[in-house]
Amino acid sequence: MSGTSGSRAEIGVTGLAVMGRNLARNLARHGHSVAVHNRTEAKTKDLVEEFGNEGTFVPAYSAEEFVASLERPRRLVIMVKAGGPTDAVIDEFAPLLEPGDMIVDGGNAHFEDTRRREAALRDKGIHFVGTGISGGEEGALNGPSIMPGGSKESWEALGPLLTDIAAKVDGEPCCSHIGADGAGHFVKMVHNGIEYSDMQLIAEAYDLLRKGLGKSTDEIAEIFQGWNEGRLDSYLIEITVEVLRQRDAATGKPLVDVVEDQAEQKGTGRWTVQTALDLGIPVTGIAEAVFARSLSGSAALREKTAGVLPGPAASELTGDEAASFADDIEQALYASKIVAYAQGFNEIQAGAAEYDWDIDLGAVAKLWRGGCIIRARFLNRISDAYVQNPGLETLLTDDYFRDAVAAAQDAWRRVVATAARLGIPAPGFSSALAYYDGLRAQRLPAALVQGQRDFFGAHTYRRTDKAGSYHTLWSGDRSEVQTS
Amino acid sequence: MSGTSGSRAEIGVTGLAVMGRNLARNLARHGHSVAVHNRTEAKTKDLVEEFGNEGTFVPAYSAEEFVASLERPRRLVIMVKAGGPTDAVIDEFAPLLEPGDMIVDGGNAHFEDTRRREAALRDKGIHFVGTGISGGEEGALNGPSIMPGGSKESWEALGPLLTDIAAKVDGEPCCSHIGADGAGHFVKMVHNGIEYSDMQLIAEAYDLLRKGLGKSTDEIAEIFQGWNEGRLDSYLIEITVEVLRQRDAATGKPLVDVVEDQAEQKGTGRWTVQTALDLGIPVTGIAEAVFARSLSGSAALREKTAGVLPGPAASELTGDEAASFADDIEQALYASKIVAYAQGFNEIQAGAAEYDWDIDLGAVAKLWRGGCIIRARFLNRISDAYVQNPGLETLLTDDYFRDAVAAAQDAWRRVVATAARLGIPAPGFSSALAYYDGLRAQRLPAALVQGQRDFFGAHTYRRTDKAGSYHTLWSGDRSEVQTS
Repeated sequence: MSGTSGSRAEIGVTGLAVMGRNLARNLARHGHSVAVHNRTEAKTKDLVEEFGNEGTFVPAYSAEEFVASLERPRRLVIMVKAGGPTDAVIDEFAPLLEPGDMIVDGGNAHFEDTRRREAALRDKGIHFVGTGISGGEEGALNGPSIMPGGSKESWEALGPLLTDIAAKVDGEPCCSHIGADGAGHFVKMVHNGIEYSDMQLIAEAYDLLRKGLGKSTDEIAEIFQGWNEGRLDSYLIEITVEVLRQRDAATGKPLVDVVEDQAEQKGTGRWTVQTALDLGIPVTGIAEAVFARSLSGSAALREKTAGVLPGPAASELTGDEAASFADDIEQALYASKIVAYAQGFNEIQAGAAEYDWDIDLGAVAKLWRGGCIIRARFLNRISDAYVQNPGLETLLTDDYFRDAVAAAQDAWRRVVATAARLGIPAPGFSSALAYYDGLRAQRLPAALVQGQRDFFGAHTYRRTDKAGSYHTLWSGDRSEVQTS
Repeated sequence: MSGTSGSRAEIGVTGLAVMGRNLARNLARHGHSVAVHNRTEAKTKDLVEEFGNEGTFVPAYSAEEFVASLERPRRLVIMVKAGGPTDAVIDEFAPLLEPGDMIVDGGNAHFEDTRRREAALRDKGIHFVGTGISGGEEGALNGPSIMPGGSKESWEALGPLLTDIAAKVDGEPCCSHIGADGAGHFVKMVHNGIEYSDMQLIAEAYDLLRKGLGKSTDEIAEIFQGWNEGRLDSYLIEITVEVLRQRDAATGKPLVDVVEDQAEQKGTGRWTVQTALDLGIPVTGIAEAVFARSLSGSAALREKTAGVLPGPAASELTGDEAASFADDIEQALYASKIVAYAQGFNEIQAGAAEYDWDIDLGAVAKLWRGGCIIRARFLNRISDAYVQNPGLETLLTDDYFRDAVAAAQDAWRRVVATAARLGIPAPGFSSALAYYDGLRAQRLPAALVQGQRDFFGAHTYRRTDKAGSYHTLWSGDRSEVQTS
């Protein structure tokens, strides 16, 4: 092929920044003819000039030309910034489309926006397919994890192309239809929330090894590499080894020692927590991870507190305690990771119930096994758990995970206790443990909270021994009345 | 007075459920003539019949009559459910008002709704005064804490009436003008978030005393009563003693043992966390408190986990450790409470910066000293801190609080470590400690997170030793390039 073609293209991509460009190339490399379009012409020309030999590209220099170049029903992928730019592109193209055509939004849209757009376009007979795509630039080119929402009809038309370009694990594509309207973007959002949690837990493990055991970055890289050969085998641990081994050329120091310790956050982690709050699902691990980034980035505040607020006398382990501490941390990391995924999957369950999506949690775990940032061997276990029991209330009661946590918990408790004692912040490890112990508890002190609420606000309470709502006449004779 | 009057009323209250009725009575008892109105006539009649002897009420049985009964500029207080009902009442009354008139919304509106309503009514020359009112039914009647937002002009007209009916501490009214438009409801929201945190910390203290030391509810009530005579002196500790001492008449058991341990949540705690996420302010203590309620209320989930998930071998302290543990808990409670307030006040600071409100944090602390649910001796210390240094970055660097935490921290660390070891969930204590240690840290592992983000997403990082943004060519020769 010459790299361009006069015939109609199977699919089109508009928005040719790095993600869009790589996705178009991925499609072309898999033998699909791809119409390409960008607001500024130069990017379209560059793509065809530079990568035209990779497959069949049909460049288009106006919205009309772009739409006209697509076979029908049209498959139009938009890869632009979430928010206003996405609405602007939809507004530009929708009038040019016909019933049965499909718009795929591959950006990181908020699922509520996707629901709104899907409903608006459905009225016009156009399928709007909010699609989560994870894996960054490299994944977009070589095989991302793809989470499409939208109608079943659109999945029939899009599925073959999307599964073609998705990452493959054990021969299975990391792509399947998640559910109606915003389900794909919802699941991608939770993926990102879990990613925040995974990264925070790794950061805490690193911090404890560094400060609590006084290990060097090279020694810690070695430890993580060992972990990566076991049950913690994952992309994020793998790149942690790479990052820790990197030396800064200018100073000769470990790179992590010259990088500003202020982590940034984008919308999706925050949205995961905000949505969980609306759904009433405790995602404490993700919340602590998002807040840990906020804290790290609070430069003006930290300037007044770092190294100033008083700490404990000892800040490093010695002797026998030190000898087994790295192993303890591996256990804590694994157990806390299980909790993070348990919370994230519960949020997906709750979202599915709230928005009436039929989501196969085992399939979600499967499509996260490759292509995406949180890809890990571990996800096979999660998939197995949901295949065995699709209605599982929490991963923590699955046999494999329950046993793993049972075996890890003594070490996990030691790590949380040691972090507290040494003054090394471990919000991820400790909130995960508190969540676990909260679920374990046969009685929670929430009964006292209900008593307080009834006292100051007559909010009433329920009883363990009979149905109905009750109120104690606190400012009267303190007898109890049934209120419903 | 006869209880009704043909002359015009100084102020009007519409919405005569218990909060509105008590607020109207409070106004009347302070010598203000109050027009009263309700959607259903019966409540208006009942109020005048039952409480007409308390002051001057002017009953009105239509919107027109109600508006006509008010002296000008009109002061109209709406006490209806937040959300749709508030909009409906505004839509009903606004067309009947004239420029310069004031609508006071005393409900728990979201501050963004208040901002929207204020802007819309400002266009018509009407002052909309979103006003936080805390103290429940009893406070509304006998003196609440009042947090009015809105314009300065409206404060001039409303201030004298509101300060009249507010709680008084040391002769000072628990009411002052918070700031423009939604500032009052914002501060009330954070008040409620702090209330969640306060209650959670008390609940954890109770749980540790009960499970970790095996103490009875009466013994624990005694301990809390002792604490209430010291620096923890507060309304919430006081009512905790009352609740713990309450016996269930039917079973003879402590009431807290027959109350269902599933705490409910309303919107404001959740909003506090969601808003903090938007503002980038870590309010981990409030988030853990809100999520702890969600967890407690997850009945279907807990049915599968409570008493089933494996726990540690020992679940109670013995010997020397036990002897001082109650004192340790007092220290942990005080230190964690300081963190909760530090986080809450930082959220107010950030809200003020974001929405251009000129909020006096010392004044906020003062008006929470009485009337409201979180009233406490402790708030004098916070007020002092902000009076001394209005730009204080965090309460934790104020001399008094820094010293208090320094003295408490060893005990605090022991409590967090012990809770982890015994398997008693203490998410509030442990997240507060992790936050404190995060602020203390000279280096955070966020540098590793930035390295990971640069690796998988080319998100770039900053360096500690020079300005600009940098990227390592991870999949190239691993040299570093400056990107800005």
